[in-house]
Formats: sequence, structure tokens, C-alpha cells
Amino acid sequence: MSDHEQSKGGDPGVSRRNLLSGTAKVAALAGVAGASGGAGIASLTRQAFAQAVARRAQTAEVRPGDLDEYYGFASGGQSGEVRVIGMPSMREIMRIPVFNRDSATGWGLTNESRKIMTEGLLPATQKFLETRGGTFLNGDLHHPHMSFTDGSYDGRFLFMNDKANCRVARIRCDVMKCDKIIEIPNASDIHGLRPQKFPRTGYVFANSEHIIPIPNDGSVLDEPTKYWSVFTAIDGDTMKIAWQVLVDGNLDNTDADYQGKYAFSSCYNSERGVTLAEMTSAEQDWVTIFNLKRIEDAIKKGDYKEMSGVKVVDGRHGSPYTRYIPIPNNPHGCNMAPDGIHLAIAGKLSPTVTLIDVRKLDDLFDDKIKPRDAVVAEPELGLGPLHTAFDGRGNAYTTLFLDSQVVKWDIEKAKRAYKGEKVDPIVQKIDVHYQPGHNHSSMGETKEADGKWLLSLNKFSKDRFVGVGPLHPENDQLIDISGDEMKLVHDGPSFAEPHDCMIVHRSKLNPVIIWKRDDPMWEDIRQQAVKDKVNLEEAADVIRDGNKVRVYMHSNAPAYSLEKFTVKQGDEVTITITNMDDIEDLTHGFTIVRYGVMMEISPQQTASVTFVADRPGVHWYYCQWFCHALHMEMAGRMIVEPHAV
Amino acid sequence: MSDHEQSKGGDPGVSRRNLLSGTAKVAALAGVAGASGGAGIASLTRQAFAQAVARRAQTAEVRPGDLDEYYGFASGGQSGEVRVIGMPSMREIMRIPVFNRDSATGWGLTNESRKIMTEGLLPATQKFLETRGGTFLNGDLHHPHMSFTDGSYDGRFLFMNDKANCRVARIRCDVMKCDKIIEIPNASDIHGLRPQKFPRTGYVFANSEHIIPIPNDGSVLDEPTKYWSVFTAIDGDTMKIAWQVLVDGNLDNTDADYQGKYAFSSCYNSERGVTLAEMTSAEQDWVTIFNLKRIEDAIKKGDYKEMSGVKVVDGRHGSPYTRYIPIPNNPHGCNMAPDGIHLAIAGKLSPTVTLIDVRKLDDLFDDKIKPRDAVVAEPELGLGPLHTAFDGRGNAYTTLFLDSQVVKWDIEKAKRAYKGEKVDPIVQKIDVHYQPGHNHSSMGETKEADGKWLLSLNKFSKDRFVGVGPLHPENDQLIDISGDEMKLVHDGPSFAEPHDCMIVHRSKLNPVIIWKRDDPMWEDIRQQAVKDKVNLEEAADVIRDGNKVRVYMHSNAPAYSLEKFTVKQGDEVTITITNMDDIEDLTHGFTIVRYGVMMEISPQQTASVTFVADRPGVHWYYCQWFCHALHMEMAGRMIVEPHAV
Repeated sequence: MSDHEQSKGGDPGVSRRNLLSGTAKVAALAGVAGASGGAGIASLTRQAFAQAVARRAQTAEVRPGDLDEYYGFASGGQSGEVRVIGMPSMREIMRIPVFNRDSATGWGLTNESRKIMTEGLLPATQKFLETRGGTFLNGDLHHPHMSFTDGSYDGRFLFMNDKANCRVARIRCDVMKCDKIIEIPNASDIHGLRPQKFPRTGYVFANSEHIIPIPNDGSVLDEPTKYWSVFTAIDGDTMKIAWQVLVDGNLDNTDADYQGKYAFSSCYNSERGVTLAEMTSAEQDWVTIFNLKRIEDAIKKGDYKEMSGVKVVDGRHGSPYTRYIPIPNNPHGCNMAPDGIHLAIAGKLSPTVTLIDVRKLDDLFDDKIKPRDAVVAEPELGLGPLHTAFDGRGNAYTTLFLDSQVVKWDIEKAKRAYKGEKVDPIVQKIDVHYQPGHNHSSMGETKEADGKWLLSLNKFSKDRFVGVGPLHPENDQLIDISGDEMKLVHDGPSFAEPHDCMIVHRSKLNPVIIWKRDDPMWEDIRQQAVKDKVNLEEAADVIRDGNKVRVYMHSNAPAYSLEKFTVKQGDEVTITITNMDDIEDLTHGFTIVRYGVMMEISPQQTASVTFVADRPGVHWYYCQWFCHALHMEMAGRMIVEPHAV
Repeated sequence: MSDHEQSKGGDPGVSRRNLLSGTAKVAALAGVAGASGGAGIASLTRQAFAQAVARRAQTAEVRPGDLDEYYGFASGGQSGEVRVIGMPSMREIMRIPVFNRDSATGWGLTNESRKIMTEGLLPATQKFLETRGGTFLNGDLHHPHMSFTDGSYDGRFLFMNDKANCRVARIRCDVMKCDKIIEIPNASDIHGLRPQKFPRTGYVFANSEHIIPIPNDGSVLDEPTKYWSVFTAIDGDTMKIAWQVLVDGNLDNTDADYQGKYAFSSCYNSERGVTLAEMTSAEQDWVTIFNLKRIEDAIKKGDYKEMSGVKVVDGRHGSPYTRYIPIPNNPHGCNMAPDGIHLAIAGKLSPTVTLIDVRKLDDLFDDKIKPRDAVVAEPELGLGPLHTAFDGRGNAYTTLFLDSQVVKWDIEKAKRAYKGEKVDPIVQKIDVHYQPGHNHSSMGETKEADGKWLLSLNKFSKDRFVGVGPLHPENDQLIDISGDEMKLVHDGPSFAEPHDCMIVHRSKLNPVIIWKRDDPMWEDIRQQAVKDKVNLEEAADVIRDGNKVRVYMHSNAPAYSLEKFTVKQGDEVTITITNMDDIEDLTHGFTIVRYGVMMEISPQQTASVTFVADRPGVHWYYCQWFCHALHMEMAGRMIVEPHAV
């Protein structure tokens, strides 16, 4: 944290490098020229240079050999993955498969990944997938967010939701791999997701967007009055569901406060409609406030109903556990400001953002004030306000979907205007290209918001890039917000579809570069190897166990420890490989030709894959991650003896 | 082509924009300052500015609103996809799923994509996949290359290979979607792939890398003396196999000449070994030369053997159809120079690149000269030479895997040195980071090589990016080769694993931005709709046909034409949707919650998906491509009536 504090004043390592690159060199050059020219340069010229240097420091360019200052963890939307972006360069540095299938790493093919993808599914879903290969092939990943400690990122985990198949997943930030996926019962589709900020995560909050019968087993069908939504709190440490709250309306986006007292969810369908006309009929919907302490007490004292194995508290109108604050109109974004005070709910069909002072919520729950008394501002900002970000200096930045703009506005002025003062809270509007959804500021979802960068995740790119056919990329635009004026500095095309991104200073993360041999990811393998009396690190063994064959190898570039092995047609074969190279970046792979088998084995990692050897003949296996000058020669043969004819 | 010619001298649209951006502004500013300062600026200072502006023009930065000048079509390696890169910005503009499964577009889920993924598979593979969901989940895509007409890119198709499951695929450049995938019989794993350059593509050449028994049905197992490789020529227009050639040794990379007479493949395993020791035992391997005319004549006159339905010519030693030119040592890269004369084979374990003059090949085939007589240079360049690119100005650029360098060398000097003259062909070496594999120059695989940019696809990135765990990105480095000196301008992290990239000027492509309604991609749907008397463009129909239910909708943001539909548990349901929006970039999607169903429907596209409705209850479907301010409300219900209990 001190590193990050330091970096606010300019991380010395970064800025020194910046000073030696790019336009800084122009200034340096000119200085020399001025001196050798002997005539001196007018002070105004020097000022122009200084300005040029300052402008330079605000570009997205990160020169070869320099490092990005921030990580962006971006949703891959319907691609089902999480992306690690370097910022400000906006380069995609890594993809982390989560709800998708990934050929390169074998995500969805290896035993370790299949366990993660299946063990947290509900029994009915496991049964449903039995005839479908055992796992979902798709996901719709919307909201990746890091775990918090004391109101800021702690570098432990990322959490994210799958709207398509109603799941919540976790990524370990030390190795940047998904380690848990659970399915949420009683919910239709998980949309909004955010972690508890204080005292720590703690809870991960997740919204069921659409309303459905609970249970959704066919006993209730076309009777929408019997459809409901639930708010879910998951224990981020164990990835077990702590409790759910049954609510009126539906649930869209969510966030949590900095006091550990409340969570919030926007609702665009207070009507509980099932058609577009019904969902948009009311002029106001609401934000639902969840009182964490009261809900925890309810669980303790037994004021809940058990549904699909989960403790569900009734939070509908009249409940002591929730409050509903009216908001115009089909609101969407739900963003807690880093000041710990203000919650911004974007109006979507209303041109307003509604600002709630969370210090008033105790009184609201104690019925000392009315719901709308918690509102302290409602500035009219433009058409289609969707999400709001913050710079930690009292400004808010709201995306205007219909206007294709980001509007910067002053929170205090908006409050004064709400009280009737004639003051315009709008500081600046900047065009974005085009139709922005989420936006994000550097560290802006934490109490350490540093106001350097703003990312506008635009849903359309239209003419901003060379043509690539009917399917266009999105456009993630980087805006410099470090000065008084917003400046657009970079257009970043992206594949389907960043719904969300969190921007964390690199000092908050310390990923390992080589796996630890005792990593829990391959604990099952370890136990089986003990039973088979195999030392994984020296293995070159073929263990036959009925028609199950376990093949153990290790690898050192450019060779596997087995140059061939033989099995019988119909055997169930498990291949386990340990990559004994311990050099940074020396990843191996294992692919069997025409068998659909492929996996990643990074330095010191153990990985395994199981399949039925039902094709006879000679099948080469090879390393698919380029590892060595003799990489092409890193191969061997699986010989499958045919059934007797 | 004239656009491209023009752009060599500087596309006016691009350069005008460049002049108004970035450091150009510094110069402009300084000019004003100098004038108003009244003192004038020393001419040396002005020169420094001019240099700075010149340097600016060589950076990778493409400012917001400007377009890239080149497309890069990059292999996604073991990720199984093709990537469209904007160059010089190195931004990934689109992913095209090919051998992988893609959640976002429904590649592998829609009926249209599943047909492409399955219909070209061999019967034995179709049977093998029956219990595995019908399609492979993985692929190892190495070599994307564009179709040629008269020695340059013609913008029709891209072709690419799958090493993992032995397939060749095609992408239509008008819509940037894969439209054909075929599996290659008699081959182990397809590695090298290149299209015929002249008179047109024509043939697509594909190498079987490993040697296997033919047929590989289990009748021959651990008898490597009976293993062989085949060279395959595919008709790029029909995607049918034209013929194969049985060869000695194995086949690695391939290329074709500019005369339409020969194709070439490097061989690193002339030993026909099956272990690392065996494969590296000989000091020399070879490049195999294929005489296209003689092979075509052999097919005509019946000098072939039919194997797995393919006409296979015997091209082993002694054959009139091939020649084998010895090359030191386990050679890898096989690159035809844009001069139409020189073929470069990189030595890999030898520090040399062997240069062959293809004009000598007629004599070689007529036995007037010996194989090595076709060699005209063999410069010693450094350790681990893998691939060679060209600038059209007589220079070659070879990657040195072990030295982590790109070496620029002069072809004519190399030839003079080979004749014994004391001249050093090496012009410059530049460090790359780290371990380069393929490299590519702009338009460098065509007779229009323009010598502007070189891309070095490095297999390791190590410390070049912020840490992302044990699995590192690759590093695609962009090098400016427009001047006398190579200059490194950009580090581009990339996910697994660019093996290859072709760099084509944007004037060569003209993709459509909205689908044509009569596109052949959904011809099956069209025929079924006629039978069902449904107008796809106005559809809101549910057709029951036994236990098959066909649901037809169209979409206009923000609504599907059906707000709900009802089926019975166990029905086989086909959903067909036509996106009637005809606005650029207005893609819709269709996802059914907890059903693993997801697809893309771009403007004016029709797409379909089939599944069994075996989960009862209320299942929302929704649009997963953000389309409208009311996108969240674009949803409906699939009501699945349960079996009578």
C-alpha cells in the first residue's frame, strides 16, 4: 500500500523511464541544441517544451521495455473469460478462461479444470449436463472485482458472475487461474456482482436479474405474479452461499459501502413485468438497500426459509431487512463513491443520476426518515446515464449511452443544486465512440481512488477501426482525467464484450512466476500418485489398473520422460505430466493428435487429462507451447493396440 | 492495388492525420512560441524538431480516430482461433473462431457452425466424436495465409491448418468468418501450410509433420520403418483434396514459388526417427521440391494409388515428382523471397540459412545438375535461425531463436560470399525479447513486399510485461524496417500462441459491414423456412412437428418478435432468429439461461441453434450483445411444460 501511496506522487521507477522516452527526448535534445546554438531559447519556448513533456506523460504509449503502471481486469462478457489488461497501454496481457472452454490451456479438458467447472453445479444441472459433455460450453461473464481489505484491493482474489448459466467464480491472483465456480440456486441469472469492501471480503454480493418461480421446477409456469428475485451473499473465502434475500422487483447492478453495513442493488423492473411494455411502465423503480447486520441476526435467530439448501430471508416490502428508495427510471448503474458517503444510481431512461448519502440509511432503517429523504442530489446530466466513476477529488464521471458521451460533474455542486442553488454541476462532456456502458477510474472503486485514468467501455465502435466484417469490436477508450480537462488518448478495440473492468495499481499484486510444487490445484493427482507409488517429479510410469491406465511423465525441454507408451483400445487413459523446468516462462503443453486432448503445463506445474483410447493406431503426442530450439522434436507416440478383430 | 501503390509513397489520408497529431504538435507549438518569443530558434533546434517529427511517424501509435494501415492475420496457435490485428498499432481488432469453441459467437453451438465443424471430418473421426459432443473442443492453428492472384493477396480467403486434429480451414474475407473445415486423411498432423501464389490459389499446400502408418488403423503399430509422411494439395475453391504425395522423411514448413511450377517443404527428420536422438542424428536433412506439373500429369495418367479416397503419388527418392536438396541441420523455416528467385531454408540447428535459386530447379528435375547445385548462398547468421522475411529491397531478415535476435542480411552479398568473395552479408542484428519464431514483413510474402514493418513473433516475454502468473504471454514485437536501420518500436503481448502472421495492406480487403440476406451461410435455414411457410424477416412462429419444435423469431432492438414461447419437456427445439436491424455494429445475441445456449446474430444475419428442452420451468432468453438503451429489457421466456408426473 505504501508503494501505491508513493506512486501517487510518481513511482520513481516509472517516471524515470518515462522521462527518458518519447517526447521527453525532444525536450532534452532541444535543450542541448539551445545550449550549443548559443542563442538561448525564449522562456515561452521552454514552457512549450515543458507542456509537451507533460502531455507526453499522459499518452497511452508504453515504450518497449517499460511496464504498465496499472492492471485492468476486464470482463470478457459473452466470451466467458477474464482479461488482464496493461494500463495505460491497453494491451491484453493475459486471458484467464473461466466460464468458457479454452483450447490452449485445456480449460474444460483437464481433470483439474473439469473438477472446478462441475463440482459447484447444482445436482439438477449436473444431470442436465450428463448428455452434454458434463460442462457448459458458454458463459456470460460480466463483473470481475477484486477482494478488499479495509476499503481497498488486497490482491487475493477476483470474483465474477455468469449471467448465462447463473454462476459465480473466483480467480486466485497469485497464479491468475480460476479455482472455484459455483452455481446459485433460486436465481434466474446472476447479473450484478460486487465484493464487500469493509472490513474485508467477506461477502461477495450477487443479483438475480430476472424474476422466476422459486423453485423453478415446472410447478409454476406462466404465472408471473409468482415470480421473484433473490439477492445472494457468498462467503468469498469458502465460496459457499451464506444467505439469500427474497426481494420485490428485480435486481440489476450492486455495490457495497465502506462501513460494512449495507449493500445496494438497482432495480429496473419494480413492476415485476415480463414484457418490455410492462418493465418500462412505471416512471420510477428503486434501489434496494440490504442491512447486513439485520440479515445476519435474522439468520442467527432463524427468521428464514430454507430453499434449495440455502437460508432465504424475506426482504420484500415491509421487511426489516431491506429498504426501497424510489429512483427514476429503469435505473442501471450502482456505484459507491470513494468518499464513503455517496452512492450513485444512474437513471438510464431518466437523464439523471440519483445520489444517496449512505449516512442517512441508519435513520431510514429506523423509520426516522422516508426513503427519498436519503437522496441528496439528482443532477440532470444527459441521455442514457448508465454508470458512474470517481476520481477521489470530488468529481463523478457518468457514461451517457444515448449521447455517446462521458459527463464529468461536481458532486458538491450537484448537492447544492439539489437544495435549490443556481449552480451547474456539469464540468465537462467528452465524446466517446460510441454508446458507452460501464466506465472505470484508476483505483476508483476503492478509498484509494487516484484520479489518473478513466476507461469508457463503449458498446459500439462502428468506423473507429479497419473493417472486420459485420461483427465489430467494442471500443475501450482511455481518457486522461489527471488534469482539469478530460482528454481522450487511446481507442482500444476489444472482443465480446467488456461489461466491466477494475483498474488496480500494480503495487497491489504480486503474482508468482513459477508454480509452487505443493499447490492445491493438483492435490487429487498427488493423492493418486501416492497410491500408485509414483514420484511425480521423476515419473516415467505406466500403471495398469483393470482397463484404467495411468501414464505418469515429467518433462524437461525438449523431451517428455516417455518417448512412447502402449495402451489397448477402449482403455480409460489418464495422462499426468509434471513440468520440471523451473525457468520463467518455460511452459510446456501436451497434445495428442486427433484425440481432442490438449493441456498447458507451466513451470513446476502438474496437470492431468483423462480420455478413452478408442481410436487404434499410432498417435503422436507433442508439446504445443514453443519451449526450445528442438520444440518441434518434443514428441512421442501413444500406441493403441486394436481390439482383436 | 493502385491504392496500395499510392500508399507506398504515403497514403495522403493517413499522413495528413499523422501530421496533425502527437509530436507534430510539439513542432507546431514551438514554431509559434519561437515567433512570439521574437528571438528565433537556432536552426539546429528546428532540425531536432524535424527529427522528432520523423521519429514520430515511425511509432506504433495510431491516434484515436485514425485507422491502421495494415491488417495482420495472426495465428492463435493452440487457442485455435485467428486474430485480426491492426498494424502498426498492434491492437487485436477481432477474433475469428475456427478450431476452438467460442462462447460469444456460439461457434460450436449454432447449427451453422456445427455443420462447418463436422461435415468435413473423416467418417472414423465423426464416429469417434459421437460420444464427445460431435465436435473437437480444441485445435492448434499455426499458419493463416491469404489466397493469391498473380503473386499478391486477392482478399478472397484465408487458409489455415490445425496441427492437433489434422484439419485445414478457410475463412471468407468478406465477412471474416470460417466457412469450411476439412480433415486430411493419410496424414498425422498438419503443420506447414501455404497457398499457391501464381497464377492464383488454386492449391493450398499442407504438410503432414509426423510419420505414421498409412492407413493408421492399428494394423501397423511400433514398426517405424513403415511410417510415412504425405504432402497434400487442396483445391482452395472447393476445399476438396486434389492429390497427395508420399515422401521420404517428414515435412515441416512449406511455401510456393511465383511461377506456379514448384512447392517446397522443409524436412527436419530425414532419418524417419521416432525419438529425439534419432531425429537429430543426421548432420543434414533436406528441403523437398514438388513439381506441380509432373504431379498433375501423374494424376491424369493414373500413376497414383488411391488411399482413403485420395489420389496419392509416390514421391519418395527416385520419383520424377520430387527432388530432395540436402540442408544442414534439422531445418525449419521455408520462405520464398518476393524477387521470385530465392527460397530461404533456415538451418535451426545449423547457424546457416540455405538459399536456393528456383530458376535452377528445371535443370534439377531434368537431372542436369545435382541437388546442392541449386544452392546459391548459405550465410552463417547466428544461433537457431528459424524463419526469414524480406523487404523487397534485397534484404532478408532471419529470426535467431537461441540468440534472441533478428539478423538483417544482404542477399546479393551472401551470394558473393558463397562464391568465395570476402564480404560480410550481415547488415545488422537487433535484440528481440525473447526467442523469436516466425517473423513477417509487410506484404513480404507477395511480390508487392513494401519493406515498412517487420513483426518478430517471440515465444517468450519473461520480464517485458507486468506479471500475470506462471503462464506468460508471447511477445509480438514490431520493428520499423523502412530505414537503413531496424528500430524496435512496440512490444505486443499475445495469448497462446502466434506461430505465424501475414501482413496485408488494408487496400487489399473490403469486408462487408452488414450481412447480405442471401448469404449461403444460412441456406439450410432458408430451405426449412420455405417448407414451414415462414418468412424469416417477419417471423414470430412456433411450428410443432412431432416432438420437434421450430421457433422462428426476428429481432429489432430492443425486442425479439416473441416475448415468450412454450414447449414440452423433451422436445427437440430449434430456435431461428433473423436480426432485422440494418445498422452497422448493431449485433444482437440470443442466450437461454441455464441451457448452455448462446449465439451471435449480426445485422441482417439469420442464425439457429438446436437443443433438447429437458429442463422444465421458466427459462429466460436474453440478448447478450449490448444493443440499445433498453438492452437489459430485451428478453423473453421459454416456458417448458414438465412431463406429467
